[in-house]
Amino acid sequence: MDVEIITIGFEILSGHTVDTNAAFIGSKLTENGLDIKYVTSVGDNLEDLEMVIKQALNRSNIVITTGGLGPTDDDITKKGIVKVFRRNLIFHDDILKEIKSRYARRNLEMPAITQNQALLPQGGKFFTNKNGTAVGICIAEKGKIFISLPGVPHEMEQILTDEVIPYLQSLKAGGFTKITTLHTIGVTESKIAEMIKPNLKLPSGVRLAYLPSYSGVDLRIHSVADSNDDAEQKKDSVKKQLESVCGKYIYGEDDDKLETIIAQLLIDNDITISVAESCTGGQLGMLITSVSGSSKYFLGGILSYDNDVKINILGVDKEIIEKYGAVSEECAKAMAENCRKKFDTGYALSITGIAGPEGGSDDKPIGTTYLGLSSIHNTYARKFIFGKDRYANRTRAVYSSLELLRREILDIK
Amino acid sequence: MDVEIITIGFEILSGHTVDTNAAFIGSKLTENGLDIKYVTSVGDNLEDLEMVIKQALNRSNIVITTGGLGPTDDDITKKGIVKVFRRNLIFHDDILKEIKSRYARRNLEMPAITQNQALLPQGGKFFTNKNGTAVGICIAEKGKIFISLPGVPHEMEQILTDEVIPYLQSLKAGGFTKITTLHTIGVTESKIAEMIKPNLKLPSGVRLAYLPSYSGVDLRIHSVADSNDDAEQKKDSVKKQLESVCGKYIYGEDDDKLETIIAQLLIDNDITISVAESCTGGQLGMLITSVSGSSKYFLGGILSYDNDVKINILGVDKEIIEKYGAVSEECAKAMAENCRKKFDTGYALSITGIAGPEGGSDDKPIGTTYLGLSSIHNTYARKFIFGKDRYANRTRAVYSSLELLRREILDIK
Repeated sequence: MDVEIITIGFEILSGHTVDTNAAFIGSKLTENGLDIKYVTSVGDNLEDLEMVIKQALNRSNIVITTGGLGPTDDDITKKGIVKVFRRNLIFHDDILKEIKSRYARRNLEMPAITQNQALLPQGGKFFTNKNGTAVGICIAEKGKIFISLPGVPHEMEQILTDEVIPYLQSLKAGGFTKITTLHTIGVTESKIAEMIKPNLKLPSGVRLAYLPSYSGVDLRIHSVADSNDDAEQKKDSVKKQLESVCGKYIYGEDDDKLETIIAQLLIDNDITISVAESCTGGQLGMLITSVSGSSKYFLGGILSYDNDVKINILGVDKEIIEKYGAVSEECAKAMAENCRKKFDTGYALSITGIAGPEGGSDDKPIGTTYLGLSSIHNTYARKFIFGKDRYANRTRAVYSSLELLRREILDIK
Repeated sequence: MDVEIITIGFEILSGHTVDTNAAFIGSKLTENGLDIKYVTSVGDNLEDLEMVIKQALNRSNIVITTGGLGPTDDDITKKGIVKVFRRNLIFHDDILKEIKSRYARRNLEMPAITQNQALLPQGGKFFTNKNGTAVGICIAEKGKIFISLPGVPHEMEQILTDEVIPYLQSLKAGGFTKITTLHTIGVTESKIAEMIKPNLKLPSGVRLAYLPSYSGVDLRIHSVADSNDDAEQKKDSVKKQLESVCGKYIYGEDDDKLETIIAQLLIDNDITISVAESCTGGQLGMLITSVSGSSKYFLGGILSYDNDVKINILGVDKEIIEKYGAVSEECAKAMAENCRKKFDTGYALSITGIAGPEGGSDDKPIGTTYLGLSSIHNTYARKFIFGKDRYANRTRAVYSSLELLRREILDIK
């Protein structure tokens, strides 16, 4: 079935906000076999919104809007729904109760204006919002499905994933599409292409996309066929080909993340870990602890941003820093080894580098980074030269550090 | 004049590519006083594209498309232009020459297919592409301006900035627009609305938007008027009203970020800082060190995720944890104070909480977080109860922690 996405808000039109909501919805629905035909962004203007909703209902089977469901005056989506569908807003006691209890749990007083969030279109179906006060609204009428979600990304994402997708699945709205994404790290896009291309056989109806990011290159297989089994089979044949050619770089697929793969490896092997970070300032620890339950294997770390901290708190030998510099193989090794001993963990990872945009030299250009790893068996460090961008360099460093650990645990050369 | 942006490509609809082109164009044109009314994304399908272009020309004065100008079969934008404007494609020798010389300069042979790039609609005006082979196309007809740009971001951005904006300026297409965003933290969207509403006087032509995120609520003032001075004046009058009502929550405007504001405060006061993080696992350190030059004031920190680390490395009294728990005012205070002494910094910040989704209790529900601050003058901790989402809780905690420091330094009660 054809889908149209409508994103609402002047901040999107004026480029203040990049429209990541449309991309999230587009990607989730495409994965579920639905075809997005149009995305339309429109401002917080009732007349324009009404026109855009009518046009979308006219040309698409399913219409999903985001934004404009807040309690303030510039939130006009419910007014638009009232006009298009000619339905009244009804006050929902149960929803107000739920909102009040959310505030109570946080020990906050509910502002009077928030009561507006319980005013909802008559005859609608509502989707629970676990992270906010704006519930999702669904109206099915004349063979069309209209769904309105809040614009705050994590609220929209939760409702879409937990409520909207299962609802659309229950209507059997999707076609026969199978999509799998293989996640690689430690290899460039061109290098993968070079490895894959000579032998790759892509069945008809299958597309392969290379999606590079700072955390690695994703390989996305998109298979469309006349039957579910056929789509699955074609997808699997390409997946097998890719695995046979570049399997050692593939750390997971679909919802897998490098940090959750590492989590499972550490839990399976009953090993703990600690970190010593310099230029990343906590980003590695943050990534590791972004996984719920990480307290099972992550004990802690030292942010040794300043050299005196490396020496006095982490116990790196002053002479190492004087002789080789803080950004050196020797320093990275000392950081990792001292960290492991201090925290008494099975592994320790260290990162020291020049994130930029300042601080580079001919000898050690911006992006020069040493990643250390220490275990009871051995301690080593690897040199990387990333790019010129501070954010990119720090992000690449933390993912490469986890990849170092993955290869150590799995003994991948 | 009203503008409509059309972005072309299946990869946008399927969420594979986030539509940053629309945001870039929207922001540049808005800065130049033009009003974006709609953004429409459509796939590489000739029929759909034709329909969307016609509709845009119907309802907007200026239409700008991106994408689909390449030499291959799936690039259909020129075909769409031919259909909508009923013009032939003409071969432009001078443009082919220019393209050939680009290849020659890079010592590359021009692929035969690239010749297509010199086939352009009759009677059009063309914008030079310094970074690629797809020139920008402009057709002015019946009082409407239609502009077609390539989809590769750095090519589109160069043509828009160097050619399209000056062209539109020469037509005096823009009005007079002034935009300012005030950044607040420590207060909810509804609470701000409650404070502002009773007295706010919005001059005609001025819009106010509330833009909430985990790092606070942005207030965006968008002022349009008949003259530059008038637009500026109206914007300033609203800004002053907002500052007088909720000034203590406003930490900066436009490109300011809380972490850069903090950076400046610490540099101005010549004070250093360190952090002791539990549930955020390094996110506070990461945020602080995301600022280039943060080594001037940030010395380092301890990630005391495990309670033994809090006791053995950070030196928190074991009895405090046994008596009050690790998530307690007492523990947050001890973490901050010990951290400050250990790193010998002017300030130390601490964070300990239950980020979720596991680990809550009736007494301390998920989201319960204590933020500590220690200086040579005093040490205290504040209790927050955020929500249920791990990512949101951690992000709110780090921004609230920096806000605690901002208020301490500026002595805001």
